[in-house]
Amino acid sequence: MTNSPKTLTRLFTDADLGANALCTLGSGPAHKLRAVLRAEIGDEILLFNGRDGEWRARLTDIGKSQALAQCLSQTRPQTAEPGPWLAFAPIKKDPLDMMIEKAVELGVQKLIPVITRRTENRRVKEDRLNQQIIDACEQCERLTVPTLEAPISLDHLPAFWPPERTLIVCAERRDAQPLAQALKSINGPLGLLIGPEGGFEDAELDAALKQPISTPVTLGPRILRAETAAIAALAVIQATCGDWSTNP
Amino acid sequence: MTNSPKTLTRLFTDADLGANALCTLGSGPAHKLRAVLRAEIGDEILLFNGRDGEWRARLTDIGKSQALAQCLSQTRPQTAEPGPWLAFAPIKKDPLDMMIEKAVELGVQKLIPVITRRTENRRVKEDRLNQQIIDACEQCERLTVPTLEAPISLDHLPAFWPPERTLIVCAERRDAQPLAQALKSINGPLGLLIGPEGGFEDAELDAALKQPISTPVTLGPRILRAETAAIAALAVIQATCGDWSTNP
Repeated sequence: MTNSPKTLTRLFTDADLGANALCTLGSGPAHKLRAVLRAEIGDEILLFNGRDGEWRARLTDIGKSQALAQCLSQTRPQTAEPGPWLAFAPIKKDPLDMMIEKAVELGVQKLIPVITRRTENRRVKEDRLNQQIIDACEQCERLTVPTLEAPISLDHLPAFWPPERTLIVCAERRDAQPLAQALKSINGPLGLLIGPEGGFEDAELDAALKQPISTPVTLGPRILRAETAAIAALAVIQATCGDWSTNP
Repeated sequence: MTNSPKTLTRLFTDADLGANALCTLGSGPAHKLRAVLRAEIGDEILLFNGRDGEWRARLTDIGKSQALAQCLSQTRPQTAEPGPWLAFAPIKKDPLDMMIEKAVELGVQKLIPVITRRTENRRVKEDRLNQQIIDACEQCERLTVPTLEAPISLDHLPAFWPPERTLIVCAERRDAQPLAQALKSINGPLGLLIGPEGGFEDAELDAALKQPISTPVTLGPRILRAETAAIAALAVIQATCGDWSTNP
């Protein structure tokens, strides 16, 4: 580990952070510090908890089941990250993990597994996905951690979804506006609905598009895999009406 | 295999396609047809070669080392796909394969491996990457196959790069315009330069940005992994000034 601010190890913690606060880091971060990063007592790290900004801290103990760190000074104040929501049909493990990681990097605020008729992977491993989310937050320097909701069926999504938040529905092979054009007439918060590997069934897509919250869009002339559609659409949303006007 | 046009197996071939043409498919497609798809003689498939559009064809023989198919009728005429170029530092296998697959889905026209000072993976497995490219073309319904160039060093990229094609350089933590804003003032063809996992060295980034072809851009407030940056930037390019105004 080096003390250059750019390469300090960055870890998420549930603990409160503040001047001189002593933070307990659980077995996951303790293992990472000890076995992966070969950190030593006295090394500096960065900590964030989604509430108190980012703090430089010094490791005071590294055990097998936990590590201790004492906060030194705040490196970044807490800011809100009001990114888009992503409602997604769970897909196969590798592309799902990748989609989650990239969605976090692209600033998603809420992740909602949605069970559709053609959804093959109906057992969402929430523990694994939450770990993916935290790993990606640590890596991409986010200050907040997106929430992973419990899976709901597509039929129940409209009742869950706030009426003021536009639901952008990726509907290939339908008569719809290209995403960038549709975004020009959307004001306020928004989110994205991505179907499973085999796409939506016609009837369930019809039903989803009938909801007043829904705006159908297309993502170009090629057939995108589910995870590509999610990543590509999130990038376009953030670049054209999201937070890409600010820099690291 | 079904005869529904939406789900016909779609294969790339080097053979010429035309009315009644008999096409030989090599061992790769033959294996796929026989062992993966359990196709039978008489089944219909779709063929494309990047030159003659897309053809519906009937399998007339399926052997171990090759298969034969006879063209029936053209389903789509050949069109140009003048997408962006992607110059990328080779990264680790899994994210590299994923980046290539997604770049193909997003319509990239040319892929150029670029060796930078911090590039750890200097042996580019061109055979494997070319197979990734063809698989992705078959899946996403492209009519052209992007070319994979031989790896070149970053120092040699400006000599290789056509002067009229803007090179968009993703330069996080630098003073640069956000991508969507930069794209508004770029006319004509363009391409993207993405660094390796550890980013460019300062001096090589300075040198790349000094080239008259180069335009530096930023991709938002979070630190994106190399493959995320490539996919996200390609999506924004295609959605805002590429071919996303047309549908499948």
